[in-house]
Amino acid sequence: MSVQVSGLGAQLRGDVFDTNCPSRAVLDHVTSKWAVLVLAALQDGPMRFSELRRRIGGVSEKMLAQALRTLEGDGFLHREVAPTTPPQVTYSLTPLGDGIAERVVGLADWIAERIPEIQEFRTR
Amino acid sequence: MSVQVSGLGAQLRGDVFDTNCPSRAVLDHVTSKWAVLVLAALQDGPMRFSELRRRIGGVSEKMLAQALRTLEGDGFLHREVAPTTPPQVTYSLTPLGDGIAERVVGLADWIAERIPEIQEFRTR
Repeated sequence: MSVQVSGLGAQLRGDVFDTNCPSRAVLDHVTSKWAVLVLAALQDGPMRFSELRRRIGGVSEKMLAQALRTLEGDGFLHREVAPTTPPQVTYSLTPLGDGIAERVVGLADWIAERIPEIQEFRTR
Repeated sequence: MSVQVSGLGAQLRGDVFDTNCPSRAVLDHVTSKWAVLVLAALQDGPMRFSELRRRIGGVSEKMLAQALRTLEGDGFLHREVAPTTPPQVTYSLTPLGDGIAERVVGLADWIAERIPEIQEFRTR
């Protein structure tokens, strides 16, 4: 991490350009192929594993499980197991996850809205 | 792409959850490991290849070239070659790239600012 001196004192903040800064690893996690879509899906509310799998086109069970584990490890997801048979596992965003999901959804929405314009350029 | 009906008429917008929608491919491009950092770096202004390589810790020449090509293909980057010896290649954001970079930087900044909090959770 790098130390940035601001007007009223020194403030610690990460530097995503620095390969050794932990913020770089977190950026890699949340921008990985499936994590982006997991965060976007959970912004609509808590979901079970099977629901997430149906919502996110093309994701495999293994890849989804991996993305969920990573996001849980960073503190973005809460995993709740209900004592049913079979146990029902539900995923939801933590307050920290809410913040990151908002940014990710902002990015995804921007693309979804401008895709006709982008497509026009790509097919030129 | 899915068609969304809004108040005043039908509006075409992408669906990033749909693996066949072009918006999904664009989301994959801009959230790929190096593209995120290329977009963030270029938000500070045009840069040459060698400058980008120095700015982005850990990127290889091959990976950087690939990220630049993909972003150029989507219409986010402008590539300018000056007729010098050797030719000087400068990259800058297009107006469309400006919009996407703003969202990407918003995401990266959010992480950089909250990394102490995230780290606290991760080491628990």
